[in-house]
Amino acid sequence: MAEISSKPTLKERLREMIFDDDTPAGRRFDIVLTIAIAVSLLILFVESSPSLPPWLKTTLGWLEVLLTILFTAEYIARLYCAESRRGYALSAWGIIDLLAVLPPYLTFFFPGAHYMLMLRSIRFIRIFRIFRLFAFLNEGEILLQAIGRSIHKILVYFLFVLVLVICLGTLMFIIESGQPNSEFRDIGTSIYWAITTLSTVGYGDITPVTVAGRFLSSFIMLLGYTLIAVPGGIVTASFINTTNEPVRNDRCPRCDAKVRKTDKFCSQCGEKL
Amino acid sequence: MAEISSKPTLKERLREMIFDDDTPAGRRFDIVLTIAIAVSLLILFVESSPSLPPWLKTTLGWLEVLLTILFTAEYIARLYCAESRRGYALSAWGIIDLLAVLPPYLTFFFPGAHYMLMLRSIRFIRIFRIFRLFAFLNEGEILLQAIGRSIHKILVYFLFVLVLVICLGTLMFIIESGQPNSEFRDIGTSIYWAITTLSTVGYGDITPVTVAGRFLSSFIMLLGYTLIAVPGGIVTASFINTTNEPVRNDRCPRCDAKVRKTDKFCSQCGEKL
Amino acid sequence: MAEISSKPTLKERLREMIFDDDTPAGRRFDIVLTIAIAVSLLILFVESSPSLPPWLKTTLGWLEVLLTILFTAEYIARLYCAESRRGYALSAWGIIDLLAVLPPYLTFFFPGAHYMLMLRSIRFIRIFRIFRLFAFLNEGEILLQAIGRSIHKILVYFLFVLVLVICLGTLMFIIESGQPNSEFRDIGTSIYWAITTLSTVGYGDITPVTVAGRFLSSFIMLLGYTLIAVPGGIVTASFINTTNEPVRNDRCPRCDAKVRKTDKFCSQCGEKL
Amino acid sequence: MAEISSKPTLKERLREMIFDDDTPAGRRFDIVLTIAIAVSLLILFVESSPSLPPWLKTTLGWLEVLLTILFTAEYIARLYCAESRRGYALSAWGIIDLLAVLPPYLTFFFPGAHYMLMLRSIRFIRIFRIFRLFAFLNEGEILLQAIGRSIHKILVYFLFVLVLVICLGTLMFIIESGQPNSEFRDIGTSIYWAITTLSTVGYGDITPVTVAGRFLSSFIMLLGYTLIAVPGGIVTASFINTTNEPVRNDRCPRCDAKVRKTDKFCSQCGEKL
Repeated sequence: MAEISSKPTLKERLREMIFDDDTPAGRRFDIVLTIAIAVSLLILFVESSPSLPPWLKTTLGWLEVLLTILFTAEYIARLYCAESRRGYALSAWGIIDLLAVLPPYLTFFFPGAHYMLMLRSIRFIRIFRIFRLFAFLNEGEILLQAIGRSIHKILVYFLFVLVLVICLGTLMFIIESGQPNSEFRDIGTSIYWAITTLSTVGYGDITPVTVAGRFLSSFIMLLGYTLIAVPGGIVTASFINTTNEPVRNDRCPRCDAKVRKTDKFCSQCGEKL
Repeated sequence: MAEISSKPTLKERLREMIFDDDTPAGRRFDIVLTIAIAVSLLILFVESSPSLPPWLKTTLGWLEVLLTILFTAEYIARLYCAESRRGYALSAWGIIDLLAVLPPYLTFFFPGAHYMLMLRSIRFIRIFRIFRLFAFLNEGEILLQAIGRSIHKILVYFLFVLVLVICLGTLMFIIESGQPNSEFRDIGTSIYWAITTLSTVGYGDITPVTVAGRFLSSFIMLLGYTLIAVPGGIVTASFINTTNEPVRNDRCPRCDAKVRKTDKFCSQCGEKL
Repeated sequence: MAEISSKPTLKERLREMIFDDDTPAGRRFDIVLTIAIAVSLLILFVESSPSLPPWLKTTLGWLEVLLTILFTAEYIARLYCAESRRGYALSAWGIIDLLAVLPPYLTFFFPGAHYMLMLRSIRFIRIFRIFRLFAFLNEGEILLQAIGRSIHKILVYFLFVLVLVICLGTLMFIIESGQPNSEFRDIGTSIYWAITTLSTVGYGDITPVTVAGRFLSSFIMLLGYTLIAVPGGIVTASFINTTNEPVRNDRCPRCDAKVRKTDKFCSQCGEKL
Repeated sequence: MAEISSKPTLKERLREMIFDDDTPAGRRFDIVLTIAIAVSLLILFVESSPSLPPWLKTTLGWLEVLLTILFTAEYIARLYCAESRRGYALSAWGIIDLLAVLPPYLTFFFPGAHYMLMLRSIRFIRIFRIFRLFAFLNEGEILLQAIGRSIHKILVYFLFVLVLVICLGTLMFIIESGQPNSEFRDIGTSIYWAITTLSTVGYGDITPVTVAGRFLSSFIMLLGYTLIAVPGGIVTASFINTTNEPVRNDRCPRCDAKVRKTDKFCSQCGEKL
């Protein structure tokens, strides 16, 4: 019986530390983990540089091995102390955790240098762990709610922008492609340019040279400058509805005045709600 | 009588499939059509590339012929089963459908290579068919309504921006044109530059080199950075009015003025509601 | 007496045509004037090009003389039929009209080629006449009102942005100026770069090359990307207040409910207002 | 006794002049100080230029000495007449004032040319004095309040953008790094590029050349073009809540809950208002 009561305590403690964000142990664990993820990302970034001294490459390699062991241990601990192992393993966070652990092991089986590079990028999804920070902040939920509520309008808007850039890109191709040394080589490139311009990014790697082309670009720029207001309007309206919303359908049973969710008494007739 | 009842059934079925978005057959038809349009667009894009192997060019040519037949059949079917043939043919969608079908036929009569390129762009309007997707989504209407309601304010704003870029472009021409190798060759180019800067696109193909020019550009940038708020404000205010507007369709039974949900008497004629 | 009654008629007709926007004659006059201004601007733009055939230069010169006569006649007519000549001549529009007429005459007295160019830019203020279009549209007033009401907030914001770009520009100068071939030559240039970056224009004529410089730029970009929301928020809040404003202080004398400017009856008790 | 009453008068007068913004003397002092700061900044900017004639360098040096004396005198005067000397010296403004005075003195002890440059940047914080202008304007407070209230949402948003640019930058590195002469040299550079693109700055110093890379960039641009709406929505909603908020200081006399102007009963305790 002593064994039965002690073992669950370890498991419970682990669970509290790993899954709970409210306890001091849980917080400390999350902070250490976030730092470890940041370090592993930094290694990934530095390793990607082509001009790296060999000793640094070796050091980073060993650090990576260490972090891989740490993350593996963490994944096993999570699996061990989860209330439902299957539920955790198949949940979104479980899959992300697994994807953060797997890549270094996969490189053993597929030693092709080029492919290794590809797998590194999968390993990189580790960063998503930081999303757990969202649990700290209720604001994240409100944000996602507001965006989610206006997702339909945003999709229609995106469709409209897509049609627009295809039309304008093709038109620009017709105008500019005849020029010598024109950078508008094909319609695909022209559409890429139209997106660059409409979104007000404006790299400048492709620019119009004819008068007609500059006229059309000017139009696209001013259009993009104005169209940027539309998603703004959609999201803002959604935000205001989320934060100001005075309980949509609730009304006072006595005087039929609107009541807000937090109201305990009707603000118009004093009726207890 | 059997013939009479069967023939309308075919027509009705076709009509249901082609014009109706609610039935499964109608949906499937729309999806197939959208894919066909996307493919025809992709062909157009790939064909525009100057470096294309001959076999691909031939293949794409044949695919295009196939799609042309398909779209022609669709247009004839639409004409056949439309409730009012004339009404459809002269409606906005009827004209867009026709413009999507015509270009390949017109190339037979005008074999000039250069003109063919021009006609291709007309053929390209096929994409507008995708606008039919708007019918799926009620959101599109709300979006257009909100924009439409603020179109006057936006036009005034555009006029103001136009005057601004003309003034600033000319000023910049005076400042920068005296420099050797200046890219501000004429006032037109300078206005094009002013639009590029004010809209925060900033290609960088034309940039100021004098101190005075950089001062003025800095001012234009900060102005553009602030002015971008104006269309945002217009559209957002319109959106909020569209979504928050208390009573959509309620009107006073006596004087037909708009009434709000909370109104107990018509605010225009005093009628008790 | 006939003379007395006929003479004012001519003056009145002219006044109606020139100053009134509501009568058909007045509208026609305004449209002709707007076209004339647009043409004179186009001449200015084309003339600024360095590579112009002599015959075109001559033609444009003559067209300009014609337009100058036309604008002079218009200015004299305005002065003649204005209700208060002095009032018109000293009003903002009167001065703008005069500035649109004067430059060609001034070039006679100051034949220096370089100075002529300068004067051309003053002549160019003709475009401001188009502002009269604002009279057509009530929307312009609402726009200006909304911006005017938030001008204090916008100025504070501008001050903040100014301090920010000076700080960030200097910091960037310290980081980047040590590099060989650095484009961050002095603090002024660095501040110009900071404005270019913060306003999301991003010409690309000056770009960071060090890791620290790119870090700081990334921070400035994300800051600019977020700060752009502030004027948006200010103007939008102002717009919503302008359009939604339900008459600030007006209340029904009987039931003390809020009434809107357009209300003829109280919407809560039916009291005639 | 006369001495006692006269001495405080001088101190009080100084205090009024230096710390008070309402009296004419205080205003004049602030204006002079702001101009002095602007001049000292201008000197800093001009001095940073590498190609400066020696006489100008000397003149600017002397001007700087003069300004240093002036700022030192001002700091001493502030310390002398502050109500609590310690309180002032340790307040945020006190530290900023000290940092504006110290740098020229520190250069005596550390004559290294390179370090001097560094210290100049600290001296540059003088500009923060201009923040005192915020005291003039109540709007500044409203602005900061509105931003402060939404700071949590903005931080979550920033975290999301950070994760996004890391993911997209790495993806872009995988796509583009294989190309000859690719500017996507390492993941750090690629993330820098992703931030440049997402924030719609778009320098153009690093641009994609592959078709896949241009596809991904197009997606990032359109994403950035839409995501820019989110901070806008957050800040705007916050602004509207700040300015529209019905009752600023009214609270229920019984339970101290916030009540709105139109409330007749407290919505939390039912107390009649």
